Amino acid sequence: MSFNTPKNPLKINIQLFVENRQRLINKLKNNFGGEFEEGIFVLLKGGKEKTRYNTDFGEIVFRQESYFFWTFGVHEPGCYGAIDINSGKSFLFPPKLAPDYAIWDGKIQNEHWFLNKYKVDQVVFHENGSKIIETLNAFNPINKLLLLRAENTDSGIVLEPPTKIPGLDKFETDTKILYPIIAELRVIKTDLEIEVLKYASKCANEAHKELMRHVKPNMFEYQMESLFRHISYYGGGCRHLGYTCIAATGCNAAILHYGHAGAPNDRQFNDGDLCLFDMGPEYNCYGSDVTCTFPANGKFTEKQKLIYNAVYRANRTVFKEAKPGIRWTEMHLLAEKIILEDLQAGGLLIGKIEEMVEKRIGAIFMPHGLGHFMDALPRSDKPGLKSLRTTRILKEKMCITIEPGCYFIDTLLDKAFADPELSKYLVKEKIEEFRGFGGVRIEDDIIILANGNLNMNAELPRTVEEIEEFMSLNNKNCGGKQ
Amino acid sequence: MSFNTPKNPLKINIQLFVENRQRLINKLKNNFGGEFEEGIFVLLKGGKEKTRYNTDFGEIVFRQESYFFWTFGVHEPGCYGAIDINSGKSFLFPPKLAPDYAIWDGKIQNEHWFLNKYKVDQVVFHENGSKIIETLNAFNPINKLLLLRAENTDSGIVLEPPTKIPGLDKFETDTKILYPIIAELRVIKTDLEIEVLKYASKCANEAHKELMRHVKPNMFEYQMESLFRHISYYGGGCRHLGYTCIAATGCNAAILHYGHAGAPNDRQFNDGDLCLFDMGPEYNCYGSDVTCTFPANGKFTEKQKLIYNAVYRANRTVFKEAKPGIRWTEMHLLAEKIILEDLQAGGLLIGKIEEMVEKRIGAIFMPHGLGHFMDALPRSDKPGLKSLRTTRILKEKMCITIEPGCYFIDTLLDKAFADPELSKYLVKEKIEEFRGFGGVRIEDDIIILANGNLNMNAELPRTVEEIEEFMSLNNKNCGGKQ
Repeated sequence: MSFNTPKNPLKINIQLFVENRQRLINKLKNNFGGEFEEGIFVLLKGGKEKTRYNTDFGEIVFRQESYFFWTFGVHEPGCYGAIDINSGKSFLFPPKLAPDYAIWDGKIQNEHWFLNKYKVDQVVFHENGSKIIETLNAFNPINKLLLLRAENTDSGIVLEPPTKIPGLDKFETDTKILYPIIAELRVIKTDLEIEVLKYASKCANEAHKELMRHVKPNMFEYQMESLFRHISYYGGGCRHLGYTCIAATGCNAAILHYGHAGAPNDRQFNDGDLCLFDMGPEYNCYGSDVTCTFPANGKFTEKQKLIYNAVYRANRTVFKEAKPGIRWTEMHLLAEKIILEDLQAGGLLIGKIEEMVEKRIGAIFMPHGLGHFMDALPRSDKPGLKSLRTTRILKEKMCITIEPGCYFIDTLLDKAFADPELSKYLVKEKIEEFRGFGGVRIEDDIIILANGNLNMNAELPRTVEEIEEFMSLNNKNCGGKQ
Repeated sequence: MSFNTPKNPLKINIQLFVENRQRLINKLKNNFGGEFEEGIFVLLKGGKEKTRYNTDFGEIVFRQESYFFWTFGVHEPGCYGAIDINSGKSFLFPPKLAPDYAIWDGKIQNEHWFLNKYKVDQVVFHENGSKIIETLNAFNPINKLLLLRAENTDSGIVLEPPTKIPGLDKFETDTKILYPIIAELRVIKTDLEIEVLKYASKCANEAHKELMRHVKPNMFEYQMESLFRHISYYGGGCRHLGYTCIAATGCNAAILHYGHAGAPNDRQFNDGDLCLFDMGPEYNCYGSDVTCTFPANGKFTEKQKLIYNAVYRANRTVFKEAKPGIRWTEMHLLAEKIILEDLQAGGLLIGKIEEMVEKRIGAIFMPHGLGHFMDALPRSDKPGLKSLRTTRILKEKMCITIEPGCYFIDTLLDKAFADPELSKYLVKEKIEEFRGFGGVRIEDDIIILANGNLNMNAELPRTVEEIEEFMSLNNKNCGGKQ
């Protein structure tokens, strides 16, 4: 196993959050411009511990809400945090714990411990939100409280602002200013954030390589999920994953979000299957998001090579292009075009590529967006590109995934074959040979640099030849020498 | 690693849930007695998928709500289920899925698939609760709907009955009848349920033994959590755990619910530390709950032996006694008494054991209950025994944990030393030697049989000698031969 000897996981520099707060203050001061007045506070609510239904002991390990974490870096549940925009002073309000906590949950820490751990300026314990408003108001009479109301445009789920803080109703609140500003700040990563993202990527790389070393036909998909989680946690200290592991093999690789409870990575896979493993660990709430596709037996078939190479060429072409000033939608269309070209060369499509791009033939084979920012943020609502989660122009220090894919999804193929406007581009008998094939996705995480980008997953074997060589040298079950 | 070769995890016999429903129908018929009338239905709501805050893709793997699972065995989220008490006919209402589901989440299954998978009598797809009431009413005009309102007396958390089902308000509903009946049925396990519990226990045994083989000083606690999760899932197919892993070492073993986000198993442990690992996998929503305590270096010190043997003797004595007709509170007091005796023999206590029992000296060293039913159920509210989750008389086929423990918890010791009524039994200078010691817990899961009980964790090394021998033979880091 990689990471075999215990070593210290990355130590987080708490300055990361001091910097984030300072960036937020600067943007807000800018936002208020000439009209800037005293007594404007940011007030955020951290996540609360949840239990599974009505059980008595927390089976769900608490993971901090991302906006709160970005601002304060605090791991403990039940906190509030505030910032006085004018002075820049930051406040942390951890919950006052019942004396029983010391028996069941650990030492009850004092203000000094929190001050020292999180480098805020003042710590006050609250009970059900008490003392928060009075503390802020005593420091600087409150004119306005900026609260976070965050609507995820992908899921429609809303993170509602706090309402139950005693005294909150006596002051003017605003729930519109903060969200776009803090969301925008999260798009551009600082050097300290990039250090954490790189660490999470390193853990992802180690774990994905271990899957390639370990995989063999007749295993169960969930064993691959289990091994990924173990390498990430045991070796890298990543207790959480950024998302549910997709350990799809064979035809399941055509199910884009495979792995949930209704499709729980429970297939026993076969010799000759492709594996599509989309898994990413999270370290200190900063996540990695990586997909590797490779044959379970270590050797690509000709059909698999055709699809894999199409996706790989799309992936690398986008890499070459991705830099500041480039519009992401153009990258999506570029990736699509390359995949269409290769499918045509393989005899699956017929006609002019430009027409196919226009008719959205690409979306039959790649119904998802090319990539997304590394913390979920609003996507485009443009018809035809509605799964592309950003229409933005790339800027330095954006962190983004590049994840072209090509899938054979029954329902999309059936619909396309039934539509004369689309079916005329499709070579039905050839495409039918790929029914049940599943799909291919190659996903890396990149940082946009001044003149190009940095691929945080560059160490993964990616070409057909690299993968076959890596698996033949390392995988004891696929003829490897180890 | 154990379970090294892939094998099929236990196949669940769906008859388990057919039987559970029949038991529920019988009890309810009995409950209504002579006044039994037509048109009485049980109507249950399954769990819904949750996401982490406002993110767009489910990071939290759905796990079915336990009462719904007990009744229908259904893994998919968003379902309702009903039973007509009179005819015994069962209905499952899965959610009607949007066509996009086929692209993102997998095949959209039809009624027949659900009928066949879950052996219910009728399947009807619902949209936001539609069609449920009309389906039931058409089958048999509704007189009363029995809904589940389940309050966990440990946590106070309430599982609320469904309210948003269209048409529900037109009928009489009852939220009191169902809960005590179904909760009571869950206390007594059927043979099919016991088969699943035994499988979960087997997974727990394998994983705990692997920790003993693998542990060495200077590792991090979370590496033990990671390994436990991996063995349970990779080898046993257990995707979920019943509760957050407690991977406590050294002084952390005195924190009873160690392992949560505020105390996240992140200590690097030392040579000479005791490890207290309380971890249990869950298979098909049936959980195991096991604690092993052993030295990180494979060899107990004399001080560790003293405390370990006290707890071990308590554990084994309760085993010998636990059978139908025995009151559990008596078992708790018996375990306490043994621990007090051994602490006295070790020079930590002075005085009459009976007086100490009376004064609740035992609760200083063991502030939790001796054990609990293997699905969380109401505990006693008696003062002094308030953490003991059952005051019941044991019956055949109850499944219960036996988990005596002995801890040195600063806040409880400080309080006791300050109370002359308690401190007179305490040999302060001797007890002070154990500050920072942590604690010991030995926890097994048993099934009450007609004339005794079956320990599902009997294969674990448990005596000081067995543990030292097992670790010396198997642990390559503690002088083992492997």
